[in-house]
Amino acid sequence: MLKLIPLGGLGEIGLNMMVVEYGDTIFIIDAGIMFPEAYMLGVDYVIPDMDYLRQNRTRVSGVILTHAHEDHIGALPFLLREINVPVFGTPFTLGIVRHKLEEHDLLATASLHEVLPRERLKIGPFEVEFIRVNHSVVDGVGLAIRTPVGLVVHTGDFKMSQTVVEGMLTDVNRFAQCGEEGVLALLSDSTNVEKDGHTISAQEIGAELARIMEAATGRIIVALFASNIARIQQVVNIAQTRHRKVVFNGRSIEVSVAIARKLGYLNVPEGMEIDIDEVNTFPDDEVIMITTGSQGEPMSALARMAAGTHKQIKIHQEDKVILSSKFIPGNEKAIANIINNLYRRGADVVYEKISNIHVSGHAFREELKMMLNLVKPRFFMPVHGEYRHLVLHTRLARQVGIPDDHLILAQNGQIIELEENRFRIRDGISAGRVLIDGKGIGDVGRSVLKERRVLSEEGLVVVNMAFDEETGIVVYGPDIVSRGFVFETETGYLLQDAQCVVLEIVEDVTPDVPNRVDRIRSRIQTALRQYFFFTIGRRPVILPFLVEI
Amino acid sequence: MLKLIPLGGLGEIGLNMMVVEYGDTIFIIDAGIMFPEAYMLGVDYVIPDMDYLRQNRTRVSGVILTHAHEDHIGALPFLLREINVPVFGTPFTLGIVRHKLEEHDLLATASLHEVLPRERLKIGPFEVEFIRVNHSVVDGVGLAIRTPVGLVVHTGDFKMSQTVVEGMLTDVNRFAQCGEEGVLALLSDSTNVEKDGHTISAQEIGAELARIMEAATGRIIVALFASNIARIQQVVNIAQTRHRKVVFNGRSIEVSVAIARKLGYLNVPEGMEIDIDEVNTFPDDEVIMITTGSQGEPMSALARMAAGTHKQIKIHQEDKVILSSKFIPGNEKAIANIINNLYRRGADVVYEKISNIHVSGHAFREELKMMLNLVKPRFFMPVHGEYRHLVLHTRLARQVGIPDDHLILAQNGQIIELEENRFRIRDGISAGRVLIDGKGIGDVGRSVLKERRVLSEEGLVVVNMAFDEETGIVVYGPDIVSRGFVFETETGYLLQDAQCVVLEIVEDVTPDVPNRVDRIRSRIQTALRQYFFFTIGRRPVILPFLVEI
Repeated sequence: MLKLIPLGGLGEIGLNMMVVEYGDTIFIIDAGIMFPEAYMLGVDYVIPDMDYLRQNRTRVSGVILTHAHEDHIGALPFLLREINVPVFGTPFTLGIVRHKLEEHDLLATASLHEVLPRERLKIGPFEVEFIRVNHSVVDGVGLAIRTPVGLVVHTGDFKMSQTVVEGMLTDVNRFAQCGEEGVLALLSDSTNVEKDGHTISAQEIGAELARIMEAATGRIIVALFASNIARIQQVVNIAQTRHRKVVFNGRSIEVSVAIARKLGYLNVPEGMEIDIDEVNTFPDDEVIMITTGSQGEPMSALARMAAGTHKQIKIHQEDKVILSSKFIPGNEKAIANIINNLYRRGADVVYEKISNIHVSGHAFREELKMMLNLVKPRFFMPVHGEYRHLVLHTRLARQVGIPDDHLILAQNGQIIELEENRFRIRDGISAGRVLIDGKGIGDVGRSVLKERRVLSEEGLVVVNMAFDEETGIVVYGPDIVSRGFVFETETGYLLQDAQCVVLEIVEDVTPDVPNRVDRIRSRIQTALRQYFFFTIGRRPVILPFLVEI
Repeated sequence: MLKLIPLGGLGEIGLNMMVVEYGDTIFIIDAGIMFPEAYMLGVDYVIPDMDYLRQNRTRVSGVILTHAHEDHIGALPFLLREINVPVFGTPFTLGIVRHKLEEHDLLATASLHEVLPRERLKIGPFEVEFIRVNHSVVDGVGLAIRTPVGLVVHTGDFKMSQTVVEGMLTDVNRFAQCGEEGVLALLSDSTNVEKDGHTISAQEIGAELARIMEAATGRIIVALFASNIARIQQVVNIAQTRHRKVVFNGRSIEVSVAIARKLGYLNVPEGMEIDIDEVNTFPDDEVIMITTGSQGEPMSALARMAAGTHKQIKIHQEDKVILSSKFIPGNEKAIANIINNLYRRGADVVYEKISNIHVSGHAFREELKMMLNLVKPRFFMPVHGEYRHLVLHTRLARQVGIPDDHLILAQNGQIIELEENRFRIRDGISAGRVLIDGKGIGDVGRSVLKERRVLSEEGLVVVNMAFDEETGIVVYGPDIVSRGFVFETETGYLLQDAQCVVLEIVEDVTPDVPNRVDRIRSRIQTALRQYFFFTIGRRPVILPFLVEI
């Protein structure tokens, strides 16, 4: 019996991690992170709960990475630190992984194995074939997994664009051959199941970019995702026809470009690239800069240009800035701020909303149907989506003829047991999200987040006081200070009045009362809470430190 | 010389407030709020800086409200509390305002004056005519302001939809007559200047809503903006043809519906409305519920249904939920959570992304051009937009023939001086944003927000210690506690080690050192900062309370 156990990615965009298990052998598909939600204050990122792998560590034989995006490889260092298993991936994916493991001091001990599309890999009873897919990062693959109960196809993140930029079309032929061979189950990307039709092709994007750049009279600054090598190649090609020099700026772009060039995935003609320090020695209309910051990241090169704090690049009147990427939900305001500031500095800005200069890397509905029709699976299990995406994807599969009782609507932590002719969904694995803050793993939980939220919204008031242990007389304080509360100028009278509130309580509780200090402490809590709420409508955290000396 | 002084709304969506001034007379157009940005931790809302009005209070003769949205009327209570001037508006707008002022205990002293479209109002040297505009709230108007230097037209928030739902089409004829009369300056809504073409008409929305509701076999729950009376009327009309009863649920909807019905703007046939407590006595396919929560607001009726905590309404398998409103940027994740949870409870959900069930209330580019062509102004000043919207709107005006030197690209706080044949932009007014948190007005500033951010992301560590004033011996502590930092279980060893760090410092600073306690305090700050950063990679706020007794 084959088991599929999603540890992440089925119920969210991000955290992709799937356990594939037969008998004594386990392998893992992807190990992704998610960026924290707004309420996860101070959290750097989120990884899947890997408890199941920890408990079965001796049976884990490897991890296969489908492509180099963070939601597929970002949790790899945390996995390898606990279970050092072989890692399989395509050359570009492993290039990025190598860089990442180096940063985590894990490269020396890691065992990385390059696999090319159409190559097969033996893992215990499994034979796994890599199938090229087209996505918004180069060198992505889907998987054809031959198991003792049948062939399982996993699409990875894919779309069906028919334009060759870097020669990496989705290998429709191979998916078709799988379909002819007979597929037990298809696991397919659900991200864009809400979108009708087809993704627009890279050729249209290229034509629009060329049109915009042709009209530009000053510098051109293109901000995009560092891993989008195909888009970078398009920009470089246009730069060449316009006789412009190219500058790569931003750490992640520099890393990604270096790896892609070494592998021959990106071609920048000899003499075309210049250094950032040389930019100002060329006329504005002879320069194209390719940079990061398309999501409004505050420390990115683009944000610094917009704020006027970039060391080498000051925005000029005729500069044309192109944001060739999606506005990811949650980032819109940060991006809009940067656009407004670029306009204030005189630049012209082109972005997705007003121009066709970006396309998603995930298949739209017609492409998803095509994948279903190519692979003709007996069972269908949507992956890579929030819950509504998974539901909508099962409905789409029903439209192309998969019967209701062959649709596997699963969620993280469930165990999907597959046999030749049937499946069963069992509950039982602990699956959840582990929050990473600084070097701590999983030490920030709900209670800590709640404390942080209250601190952040209401601020903090500390009361310090010391009593003589024997006489009960106040020997120090009350000293009251606040943080994140109200302006210093206004806290004056507020905190003075709060002192009076505290002193009245102290007078009121006679020295002979048992547990006098505890009693005073709890009355101070209540009284100050009421006082601040009635005077200014706020509920700060109140920390009374009363000590007996 | 006529002066226009935008105090808000030119540089953001929200905070709309414009001063119009001639000689000794000032009147104000709109008094709006903005909802706080994500970084404004704990802030309830934001109002414009009204300092200029405070300084010129004796000259302020009134405030004119163009429509009942919060970004146009939300700051009115704060304005009236400082300067109690007459308020002018249409019946529905004043209905909502009355409710709002009652909540602020200001209704008794307020002076509210109803004005109807095509009526004129005299304010000092000004004559102001209301002109009907169509928008996503009923009873919106633009203004034709006759001034000693010429006619100024302000569009308010408008679009050009040609479908009559509540009989409130934009009064194109009147704008045209202004154009024929000769217009000195046009101030026009820039919100959707990034969108090509025309807004889709309310008729198309109605047809799509009817199609979806016709197919529904269970209850229908429609979530929308409370003030969108035209959309509510459409839903009521469809409910009637489908023989369904209507329930209004959610406080703001109930208020808005009551006002609209009283004014005859909303028609709910006799016997059609039922109470929320009666819902479960009707078959599911005979009920339509109209409710709030389309923005994912956590306490809304819809959020409670999605969470399963709504008192009267539990989601059933066949329920159809329709979110007939925009996903406002910043709210997407909250809305997506609600949609996912509704799917988990078995409901089917229809929303903007997958269906044409909403249209913006603001004109698209072709409609904006039409307004420019109708009014044929000598000068053009875009309003109601972020900076990039204002820039793009001036470019659009250039396309329809307004010369470059007749385009007024102004920002909040600038003074636009208008004469018959020229304009000048002067700087000089303090304009900004005032943050409201609880009952405090403007007492939360940058420094407080920064403290809140650090507290929220890193948490807090407090060190308490008392020294004998004479001997310098430690008589209490070090007592170390944390909030919003790490799990209690893990803080144990961390804070014990931190205690050792503190004690080592105390030993190290001999009793004869001058300002010994100050010195210990600053060394504790530094040492604990380093200790926590090296051990767990975090930078909590460290508050050392060291006292001498």
